[in-house]
Amino acid sequence: MTGARSMQAALPHIVIVGGGFAGLWTTRALADLPVRITLIDRHNHHLFQPLLYQVATAGLSAPDIAAPLRHILRRQKNVEVRLADVVAIAPHDKCITLADGDTVAFDHLLLATGATHAYFGHDEWAQHAPGLKTLDDALRLRRHLLLAFERAEAEPDPARRAAWLNFAIVGGGPTGVELAGTLAEIARHTLKNEFRHIDPSQARVRLIEAGPRVLASFPDALSEKARRQLEKLGVDVSTGTPVSDITGDGYRLGDTFVPAKTVVWAAGVAASPLARSLGVPLDRAGRVPVLPDLSVPGHPDIFVAGDLAAVASDGKPVPGVAPAAKQMGRHVAQALRARLAGQATSAFRYQDYGNLATIGRMAAVVDFGRLKFSGLLAWWFWLTAHVFFLIGFRNRMIVLLNWFWAYWSYQRGARIILGADRDDQARSTRQA
Amino acid sequence: MTGARSMQAALPHIVIVGGGFAGLWTTRALADLPVRITLIDRHNHHLFQPLLYQVATAGLSAPDIAAPLRHILRRQKNVEVRLADVVAIAPHDKCITLADGDTVAFDHLLLATGATHAYFGHDEWAQHAPGLKTLDDALRLRRHLLLAFERAEAEPDPARRAAWLNFAIVGGGPTGVELAGTLAEIARHTLKNEFRHIDPSQARVRLIEAGPRVLASFPDALSEKARRQLEKLGVDVSTGTPVSDITGDGYRLGDTFVPAKTVVWAAGVAASPLARSLGVPLDRAGRVPVLPDLSVPGHPDIFVAGDLAAVASDGKPVPGVAPAAKQMGRHVAQALRARLAGQATSAFRYQDYGNLATIGRMAAVVDFGRLKFSGLLAWWFWLTAHVFFLIGFRNRMIVLLNWFWAYWSYQRGARIILGADRDDQARSTRQA
Repeated sequence: MTGARSMQAALPHIVIVGGGFAGLWTTRALADLPVRITLIDRHNHHLFQPLLYQVATAGLSAPDIAAPLRHILRRQKNVEVRLADVVAIAPHDKCITLADGDTVAFDHLLLATGATHAYFGHDEWAQHAPGLKTLDDALRLRRHLLLAFERAEAEPDPARRAAWLNFAIVGGGPTGVELAGTLAEIARHTLKNEFRHIDPSQARVRLIEAGPRVLASFPDALSEKARRQLEKLGVDVSTGTPVSDITGDGYRLGDTFVPAKTVVWAAGVAASPLARSLGVPLDRAGRVPVLPDLSVPGHPDIFVAGDLAAVASDGKPVPGVAPAAKQMGRHVAQALRARLAGQATSAFRYQDYGNLATIGRMAAVVDFGRLKFSGLLAWWFWLTAHVFFLIGFRNRMIVLLNWFWAYWSYQRGARIILGADRDDQARSTRQA
Repeated sequence: MTGARSMQAALPHIVIVGGGFAGLWTTRALADLPVRITLIDRHNHHLFQPLLYQVATAGLSAPDIAAPLRHILRRQKNVEVRLADVVAIAPHDKCITLADGDTVAFDHLLLATGATHAYFGHDEWAQHAPGLKTLDDALRLRRHLLLAFERAEAEPDPARRAAWLNFAIVGGGPTGVELAGTLAEIARHTLKNEFRHIDPSQARVRLIEAGPRVLASFPDALSEKARRQLEKLGVDVSTGTPVSDITGDGYRLGDTFVPAKTVVWAAGVAASPLARSLGVPLDRAGRVPVLPDLSVPGHPDIFVAGDLAAVASDGKPVPGVAPAAKQMGRHVAQALRARLAGQATSAFRYQDYGNLATIGRMAAVVDFGRLKFSGLLAWWFWLTAHVFFLIGFRNRMIVLLNWFWAYWSYQRGARIILGADRDDQARSTRQA
């Protein structure tokens, strides 16, 4: 223990687990408070998750959408950032346990560890249909997508070649729609002229949504527009039938088995399993049903925010989107101030500023309640909003430059296959 | 076999193994020739190796210094790019074998697979002292360097903390000098204010050269200037004593064992082991002593270029640098043209345009024979030359923007720890 540490030991200790939108926004909103904050994350960076699909589809580099938590918080002297994996919470003992067995005591705790993908009880699908939640997921998916074209090029058998050029994205939410639209653009434009034995534009990109329409959180008319924009980009949109099996060779839709070497999972979301150790009832997705002030029932010193929290506002469930996580983060900071001042906390209210999703080149949908629009204008709006909200001046400039370049040239700067192990490379060459 | 393929089967088949400077420059110089070229590389990209240390030290993203070979060559219709690993050459049968067992017959072959790092008979050092040759090496090293500061921050024991803050770079050539200078800058400036328990500027960066001076390929006076510039940046330069042991806990220099958790290998270089299957005598570094026209003795249809070739020009051995590899690549293209036209080939002559090395922030050395300079002007010259030679307009712009940002803010954009496995994270947390 250093001297500075023991001096501060008398200050209330707030532990924040998770440096995503909720955790980081709480931390920043407590900058002027005489407290000791420990922000713990298993990664060294805050991730701008809304652009993760761009890293997966080789449009952006990993560092373009991430910033080191230490750097973001370097001037906030009441914060210590710790790179560690939290494995358990002891709510009654008011401490958490780290993966190395070390424990950290807290006076107040914010749990904001977010969500991961869920396979609806089919965990065996995970190995064949990777999801997209972390930068490592994105780089793995990028590698898989780029190698699929390489393997198709090296495959003389037409049926097997077709399987390499068959791409399925399961889940018609914003991530699925973004991935499908971008993948169609890559096949039709980016890879043009680069292969000698295949025509990448013959690749089949299918978006599979079990429900009746894509972008179900948008009004019917915008869902329909999104579908038409996707089809214009060359995406085959399938709705109303769930995928019933996924193997290493393809997927089953209804009664048909479709040979496909690439299936991407953008469907189920499950809350971080850490919530279980709170010892309170969870909802079906594993989220923590919190009180209106975002604290955990029976534990007024423990808060949950972001995708891990199940809460309603104005009678409607708050969606698992970045603006909601930021608002919850700021609300938890207010609630902590109130607690420390011995005052009552207020109920969280979600301010819905609108809903936007991008589809692909020059196509997007925007829903501001009364104002709804789609197409090129919506796409410009989406682009501006996303660049504006990116953390860090440098990232914004680099991302903008990348996008201008991509728009002008149809090229994607990050088409680099990394982490290739020898086995994969051997398999990628022609198997006669 | 496609129709287009069998039609072309009558054309001479030139196989080029390796898409580095030598292989790519040969390929491009054959664009107008009625031949069939197959360019085989185990990676999907050409790598601008001179800037690899910038990826390792988090200044640039991996895709900034790499471009897909398919994309570079998309308009050159006589080339087919194949992503594959070549494991053997049968010079008499005129074919090569790929890792999956497939064989590729050639009429003419260029072997340009470069070099890898060598540990002077101490292969057990490899696990403790990683080298820097590929993008995967660079990302692994970046991860290690960034985690070292994280672990120091989490380590309460002063001796163990000091070992995490002790960095040694073995080898005082250009790569070692660049790494040492940049690492000192990161410790002194980039990480300032970000940690709460350590002072990153207390990190000790030591550059260890077994010979009498750093940058031995430069004149004495510039070596001395480089040494002084390194010391000004905070690097401890050790010359004249080789490292005699490297373990997971440190290294031995002379009689002293120095505890250090990070040792980077920038010393030995060994030619790609593929050369052995040529069946001709190799030099001590495993390179192929070629004839003056760069063909292999006894095999006029097989050429070797780049770091894999041992050749003299004007009585001096040609150095293993990018300009020499490009010149050899262009010379092989000329020699192939001569062979196909039934003419005699000429001897390769290396045109030495000068030698430059960067040291760190605003420090570099330049040797143009009569004109020698160092310091800020040399640094600007180095920067301009490197950006100019980067392949691809987009990369140049992105790299320039990154550098302006880094220069202005002392920040490094790519400080993102990727590929973290749980064990590493657990170890990185405080062990009480």
